[in-house]
Amino acid sequence: MPDTPLETFPNPRPERDYEIAIDCPEFTSVCPKTGLPDFGEIRIAYVPDRACIELKSLKYYLIEFRNRGIFYESVTNQILDDLVAALRPRRMTVVGDFSVRGGIKTVVTARYESAG
Amino acid sequence: MPDTPLETFPNPRPERDYEIAIDCPEFTSVCPKTGLPDFGEIRIAYVPDRACIELKSLKYYLIEFRNRGIFYESVTNQILDDLVAALRPRRMTVVGDFSVRGGIKTVVTARYESAG
Amino acid sequence: MPDTPLETFPNPRPERDYEIAIDCPEFTSVCPKTGLPDFGEIRIAYVPDRACIELKSLKYYLIEFRNRGIFYESVTNQILDDLVAALRPRRMTVVGDFSVRGGIKTVVTARYESAG
Amino acid sequence: MPDTPLETFPNPRPERDYEIAIDCPEFTSVCPKTGLPDFGEIRIAYVPDRACIELKSLKYYLIEFRNRGIFYESVTNQILDDLVAALRPRRMTVVGDFSVRGGIKTVVTARYESAG
Amino acid sequence: MPDTPLETFPNPRPERDYEIAIDCPEFTSVCPKTGLPDFGEIRIAYVPDRACIELKSLKYYLIEFRNRGIFYESVTNQILDDLVAALRPRRMTVVGDFSVRGGIKTVVTARYESAG
Amino acid sequence: MPDTPLETFPNPRPERDYEIAIDCPEFTSVCPKTGLPDFGEIRIAYVPDRACIELKSLKYYLIEFRNRGIFYESVTNQILDDLVAALRPRRMTVVGDFSVRGGIKTVVTARYESAG
Amino acid sequence: MPDTPLETFPNPRPERDYEIAIDCPEFTSVCPKTGLPDFGEIRIAYVPDRACIELKSLKYYLIEFRNRGIFYESVTNQILDDLVAALRPRRMTVVGDFSVRGGIKTVVTARYESAG
Amino acid sequence: MPDTPLETFPNPRPERDYEIAIDCPEFTSVCPKTGLPDFGEIRIAYVPDRACIELKSLKYYLIEFRNRGIFYESVTNQILDDLVAALRPRRMTVVGDFSVRGGIKTVVTARYESAG
Amino acid sequence: MPDTPLETFPNPRPERDYEIAIDCPEFTSVCPKTGLPDFGEIRIAYVPDRACIELKSLKYYLIEFRNRGIFYESVTNQILDDLVAALRPRRMTVVGDFSVRGGIKTVVTARYESAG
Amino acid sequence: MPDTPLETFPNPRPERDYEIAIDCPEFTSVCPKTGLPDFGEIRIAYVPDRACIELKSLKYYLIEFRNRGIFYESVTNQILDDLVAALRPRRMTVVGDFSVRGGIKTVVTARYESAG
Repeated sequence: MPDTPLETFPNPRPERDYEIAIDCPEFTSVCPKTGLPDFGEIRIAYVPDRACIELKSLKYYLIEFRNRGIFYESVTNQILDDLVAALRPRRMTVVGDFSVRGGIKTVVTARYESAG
Repeated sequence: MPDTPLETFPNPRPERDYEIAIDCPEFTSVCPKTGLPDFGEIRIAYVPDRACIELKSLKYYLIEFRNRGIFYESVTNQILDDLVAALRPRRMTVVGDFSVRGGIKTVVTARYESAG
Repeated sequence: MPDTPLETFPNPRPERDYEIAIDCPEFTSVCPKTGLPDFGEIRIAYVPDRACIELKSLKYYLIEFRNRGIFYESVTNQILDDLVAALRPRRMTVVGDFSVRGGIKTVVTARYESAG
Repeated sequence: MPDTPLETFPNPRPERDYEIAIDCPEFTSVCPKTGLPDFGEIRIAYVPDRACIELKSLKYYLIEFRNRGIFYESVTNQILDDLVAALRPRRMTVVGDFSVRGGIKTVVTARYESAG
Repeated sequence: MPDTPLETFPNPRPERDYEIAIDCPEFTSVCPKTGLPDFGEIRIAYVPDRACIELKSLKYYLIEFRNRGIFYESVTNQILDDLVAALRPRRMTVVGDFSVRGGIKTVVTARYESAG
Repeated sequence: MPDTPLETFPNPRPERDYEIAIDCPEFTSVCPKTGLPDFGEIRIAYVPDRACIELKSLKYYLIEFRNRGIFYESVTNQILDDLVAALRPRRMTVVGDFSVRGGIKTVVTARYESAG
Repeated sequence: MPDTPLETFPNPRPERDYEIAIDCPEFTSVCPKTGLPDFGEIRIAYVPDRACIELKSLKYYLIEFRNRGIFYESVTNQILDDLVAALRPRRMTVVGDFSVRGGIKTVVTARYESAG
Repeated sequence: MPDTPLETFPNPRPERDYEIAIDCPEFTSVCPKTGLPDFGEIRIAYVPDRACIELKSLKYYLIEFRNRGIFYESVTNQILDDLVAALRPRRMTVVGDFSVRGGIKTVVTARYESAG
Repeated sequence: MPDTPLETFPNPRPERDYEIAIDCPEFTSVCPKTGLPDFGEIRIAYVPDRACIELKSLKYYLIEFRNRGIFYESVTNQILDDLVAALRPRRMTVVGDFSVRGGIKTVVTARYESAG
Repeated sequence: MPDTPLETFPNPRPERDYEIAIDCPEFTSVCPKTGLPDFGEIRIAYVPDRACIELKSLKYYLIEFRNRGIFYESVTNQILDDLVAALRPRRMTVVGDFSVRGGIKTVVTARYESAG
């Protein structure tokens, strides 16, 4: 997990189920196999419980992947894991929508639903 | 809540469940953290019960946010609360679709369903 | 209700539930408050029972709104009422999709389901 | 029914339910009322049982409507009837999406579900 | 089945149901009837169980169809069969979206759901 | 010429050649042959000399065509003539972009250049 | 040349050079080689001199190609020739924009400029 | 002229004519006639001479129009004047592209060319 | 040069300069460096002199590149050379618009103008 | 200038002026003021003289900007300078099309024309 902590702020309407969708089209990491940069868009949608994600800290969190080697499947699942750990949301979906490589485009979608 | 009252008029077909969807692409408020203006589109959809929202008063109501400092999550929930208080609709959804900040785009969606 | 009768013709396949969707992008009426013209698109979708709507008479029916003062909510519901009275369809939806006024766009959607 | 027989070939995977969707944007027939040409797109989607439609024979079948007078509702239902008779599919939808006439656009959608 | 083996790598999050969607817009094979090339896009979406598909080997696998004569219905089903055999996914959909021939466009969609 | 006068206001920068482009997508008149309504968009672009067109009076001027019978070629040229008479611009273009009639779409473009 | 005469009406503003652009997306003829129907869009733009083309007669003129065998290059040039003969315009362009055949799309553009 | 100074930085390649185009879609001011907010996009393109505009100061400069009453024609020309005064560019174009009011959309385009 | 001869037919209007534009979106060849397939669209536009290209022979000509190793710059220039040799056109442009490789997209445009 | 040399290969048709256009949508560098990443698309178009740019070396050249602090105006001009030095083209344009920052989007366009 990146070193920059994901900051949160208290949900202003915890008594209501509502959705926050965040699109981050400027994501880049490094392919662990070739060492070449990967580009993509990370899309996050969640129903907050007690906490909402602070957008600036989310930005810094995503920038930390800039020079890390990590596969598409792993990065999408890790972002979901890290955000779930920081926010304890009621529900969350993370989509990693990556650009074309070798004529092939990949989109990874992972979901979390709280037990409660 | 803004000082301009939200005016309503009687629902011309209260015996039928039908939907009114209103898009307001010219919304602007102020970020309470930076003092800089935020821009976005407010989308409202509801099934009226006894009252429908008068569009001109809705416009003036939304203009009152122009110089107020308020976060995305709060503004979307407050518009829903104010409209529910004024209209007592059968169902209502409010979407706040805000423009890119720091390379990140946010959309907040809140829903209300009457108990009856 | 307009004076032009809505003509129908016998449904050529009454034994099958199938849908007819009709888009009329050239609708105009008059705002009863300001006296200024309103513009919009009327979209009709229905499952016919014994009768189908004759398109030319539908066109003349819609033209009769050209110089009438009527609100968005009323015009959408009235078109549904008039078409239901003329066709007795199994199901019908009428959408009134009106152009921007004061920076605000409105879409009204009304549905009918036969009791049978 | 047109004189050109609709040819079929054996379904290569009858043990699996899968869908074949075919779009024919170059459809034209004649309006029986005015004698003027009508234009449209025929869209077919089906789950084959034992037989699949041979595309070239489908093309010739549709060309036979070129100089026939037939209404939108009838042509869509007849294509569905003819294809169901020839293919005996598990499920089939035929959409007739016709171009604007008198400022009005019509789309007819008919579905078939096998009893089995 | 092509000679190039479909390589896989271990699913990094087997304890979670998540989806991987892969679009391959550069697919080409040969029409067995005319000997002329066919072009299309293959879209694959699956929930991995123990294994994920390695993208480079998928690319080489698809290239092997380049000079093979095979019909649309067969190629879509065979890609699904080969991928299911190699990956044993929880669920998988393969779409073959082929370009216009004789004014007609065809899309074939096949799905697999594991018994478990 | 319509009875509503076209109002103008003094050009705030007469010493500079600059362009004002105005799109009016809600234009409607009546076909003098059939008596049926025509719909279209009027697009005006001009370099003002001493006067600029006041938008509200332009709106009322265009509304006066609502129930007048006039052909596409005439309406476009007349709007150009009326605006040139009222504004005496350095240059002006008027485009009448009319909706489909009988499967045919018409756009008329007329230009004026001052002698000076 | 088709038997239906191309009717004209007097240019309402012969003292001004202005352009009339007409799009006819519903054109169909027959391939003289295969006997199969061709589809396309005919786009006409001209500066009228004394005469403008009457749209209904243009429509009937174009319908006459419906069952005639003629190549893309010839049909575009012939429409230009026929319209120039009927209208004696100052300038005219005819574009024949035909749909895909064998994976190949063709657009033919022919221009006429009067000697005067 | 607004109180916030427009800051500049030295052109890194003054020996070459090159263009900088800047789009500011989040512009808002107030209509001096109605007191209601106007919205639009300001587009600036220029060839720098000795100085380039610093983007953050441009942003603050444009924000100063937020609560000022000013017409479309004036605001576009004033932004051009202010930027020309601050930058002394070789060439500059400013476009004010404003949103729909009363069913009418306005775009104002002003250009500057240095005498040298 | 491929072995399939490019067939031509006599220009039906040699006395007029007119343009024929042909788009071939289904082009594929092989990268001589990697042995992997390349995909792209070939766009041809020309003013015929005595001869026009026969579309079916053009299609077969382009198919011959399917398994040949050739770079983007060479293939575009060679198609121009071969077509000029076969047609002796008055003017011709060939565009090779190739799909993304390594995150980079390439378009090559070559032109020919006859000396006469 | 980056350390990776820009490799070239001999122009296969030096006797003809033709254009090569290359789009690189996956460009990223670092803002020297804030230390935050910038994203953009670099578009290059040139007429080669003796040499063409080798695409893989161009890719590596552009990757070297990934962790360098450089302004939009400088990066666009430097890429033009480096490519002109390596290729000695007849003409070249470089466009740097950068993503939104602070609600403002910037595009820088620089051109080179050889003296010869």
